[in-house]
Amino acid sequence: MAPIPTSRISVFQFEWLTTCMKQGSALRSRAIRLQVLKRLLAIVCTLSPLAAAHADPLPAWNEGDPKRSIVSFVERVTKHGGPDFVPPAERIAVFDNDGTLWAEQPVYFQVAFALDQVKTLAPRHPQWRTEEPFASILKGDVKTALSGGEHAAVQIMAATHAGMTTDEFQHAVRKWLDTARHPRFKQPYTKLVYQPMLELMQYLRANGFRTFIVSGGGIEFMRVWAQEIYGIPPEQVIGSSGKMQYEMRDDRPVLVKLPEVDFVDDGDGKPVGIQKFIGRRPIAAFGNSDGDQQMLQWTAAGDGARLAVLVHHTDDAREWAYDRQSHIGKLDKALDEARAKSWVVVSMKEDWKTVFPP
Amino acid sequence: MAPIPTSRISVFQFEWLTTCMKQGSALRSRAIRLQVLKRLLAIVCTLSPLAAAHADPLPAWNEGDPKRSIVSFVERVTKHGGPDFVPPAERIAVFDNDGTLWAEQPVYFQVAFALDQVKTLAPRHPQWRTEEPFASILKGDVKTALSGGEHAAVQIMAATHAGMTTDEFQHAVRKWLDTARHPRFKQPYTKLVYQPMLELMQYLRANGFRTFIVSGGGIEFMRVWAQEIYGIPPEQVIGSSGKMQYEMRDDRPVLVKLPEVDFVDDGDGKPVGIQKFIGRRPIAAFGNSDGDQQMLQWTAAGDGARLAVLVHHTDDAREWAYDRQSHIGKLDKALDEARAKSWVVVSMKEDWKTVFPP
Repeated sequence: MAPIPTSRISVFQFEWLTTCMKQGSALRSRAIRLQVLKRLLAIVCTLSPLAAAHADPLPAWNEGDPKRSIVSFVERVTKHGGPDFVPPAERIAVFDNDGTLWAEQPVYFQVAFALDQVKTLAPRHPQWRTEEPFASILKGDVKTALSGGEHAAVQIMAATHAGMTTDEFQHAVRKWLDTARHPRFKQPYTKLVYQPMLELMQYLRANGFRTFIVSGGGIEFMRVWAQEIYGIPPEQVIGSSGKMQYEMRDDRPVLVKLPEVDFVDDGDGKPVGIQKFIGRRPIAAFGNSDGDQQMLQWTAAGDGARLAVLVHHTDDAREWAYDRQSHIGKLDKALDEARAKSWVVVSMKEDWKTVFPP
Repeated sequence: MAPIPTSRISVFQFEWLTTCMKQGSALRSRAIRLQVLKRLLAIVCTLSPLAAAHADPLPAWNEGDPKRSIVSFVERVTKHGGPDFVPPAERIAVFDNDGTLWAEQPVYFQVAFALDQVKTLAPRHPQWRTEEPFASILKGDVKTALSGGEHAAVQIMAATHAGMTTDEFQHAVRKWLDTARHPRFKQPYTKLVYQPMLELMQYLRANGFRTFIVSGGGIEFMRVWAQEIYGIPPEQVIGSSGKMQYEMRDDRPVLVKLPEVDFVDDGDGKPVGIQKFIGRRPIAAFGNSDGDQQMLQWTAAGDGARLAVLVHHTDDAREWAYDRQSHIGKLDKALDEARAKSWVVVSMKEDWKTVFPP
């Protein structure tokens, strides 16, 4: 058996111990003393052969530059005493969602939800049978429905994402996820997440990172399933949002979703959303389209070691191949900047052993 | 020595162990095995006499109903297998800031910052010597300056909180905190935090809670010092905010603070802010004024055990005494609701042994 690389295994424990000891003298509480004791024991325990079993944390990734760059970055920022060391509290990694953590073709999954939701809600709105864009959606003619451009989109979103309480909306999303199937893969949409990215998030968390979603998608839509599917709790999901209003109904308070845009978490909005919700600059960012360019710029421009990664959709057989000409997930300017600045570009075809979970 | 109440000491460790074991079979990662091992050892260690030393976690609180209610609540929601048990991830406690965690008289401390900042910035704005509300502030006549009402307030906030990058603003706040002194106590403003509330937050965190600030104050203003003073990291600070804009300056990205209100985190806005930033309903909420009423309603209306607490400023000798008639921190409707609904009302005079840290 190879010698145990102590520096890598016990880094996280040592940090905790140091923090606890510093605080211990000031606070002298039982809880702090407990933490110190626990961490001391944890350090001993990391040196045992059981803990040292060394498995590949990213088995769905082929060996290659992207995987090497990611692992090297994580090793550098967690190396205690090293020049690139970053304390755990600042190990923030941000992930775009559509096209980065799950698929986004042939339409954003949230758009699929909205179109299905029009059908679900139609019995309560008989006038929709003759009123566009609803009439076309009900006839199955999405192309005509969406030909109304932004005005049509706003009407669809208002009808399906507003005028209800947050609880009612969450219930509608959950119900849809249980029954809806993706048109190409005939699977629940939540099965179309990328196995290599699930592993990557787990790997980062095991190394003291916190993983956040920073997506143009709806914050309330994603929070319904992000914990179960990605292991990301609601408070680490950032996205676009509509305004909400606090009301009393039958003597009980509710939050009602209004048909007004509050925040668009895309492009220039992503660094703004990061500052607003997290208040610190991430050290790692993952995206797949021009909508992620500013988030990657903002992350990469911080001091110290930084990781900026683009997922490039290059696999028409297992998923889809698209970039500069795509209407969804267009990747053009960000790809040029990635090449100019040596950001990591992941080719789904070359770098991923598997795409979807088995 | 009294027998060790195992149920109370090791609750948190047992929860973790169960969670880790459940996940262990699915994930089989080294990190998870490590966690299981660490927690096992931690349980053993909580049973040792060292760990069992039983100190009062709230020494700055007098014995009385408020202290008993708080401790009883914490014991109930952490009692594994009990009817009121709440998993750690859902143990969210929210705190108003001004008047709840630190003092707010004779003016909100952020207003004191803004007024001082006008003086600091005056050399760069010679026109302020003749332009209201700045001319009066520079002459030391705050009353005349603020007689311009909302328009004057907006001008002061725009001049001191916008037109600069987020980094520049943080720097300005830090510099002010280092030098400014409170007019009555002649202390740095960050010394005017409430010792009983510091203990309470520490006690909650030691019991697996996460503590969030939900304040009408500025989110960027509070994030500068909340970690150091309260142990609350930036991502757990929610407050009022101005809009921001992403820009490139000399090829480096910056976030510029704009003179436009983005979100007012007060009154009805507090439950909205909680849903927007946290995405889950807290189980405990602490406030001191009518601006906190809806936050307490929203928290108290959830299922299961809930704790809603008002700090009542009743101590003119050690701090201030004010409620229904006060222009700052007015406590009127919320006090009536607290009495009608048996929320906990803390009297600073009766219930706090000390007010400020020694």
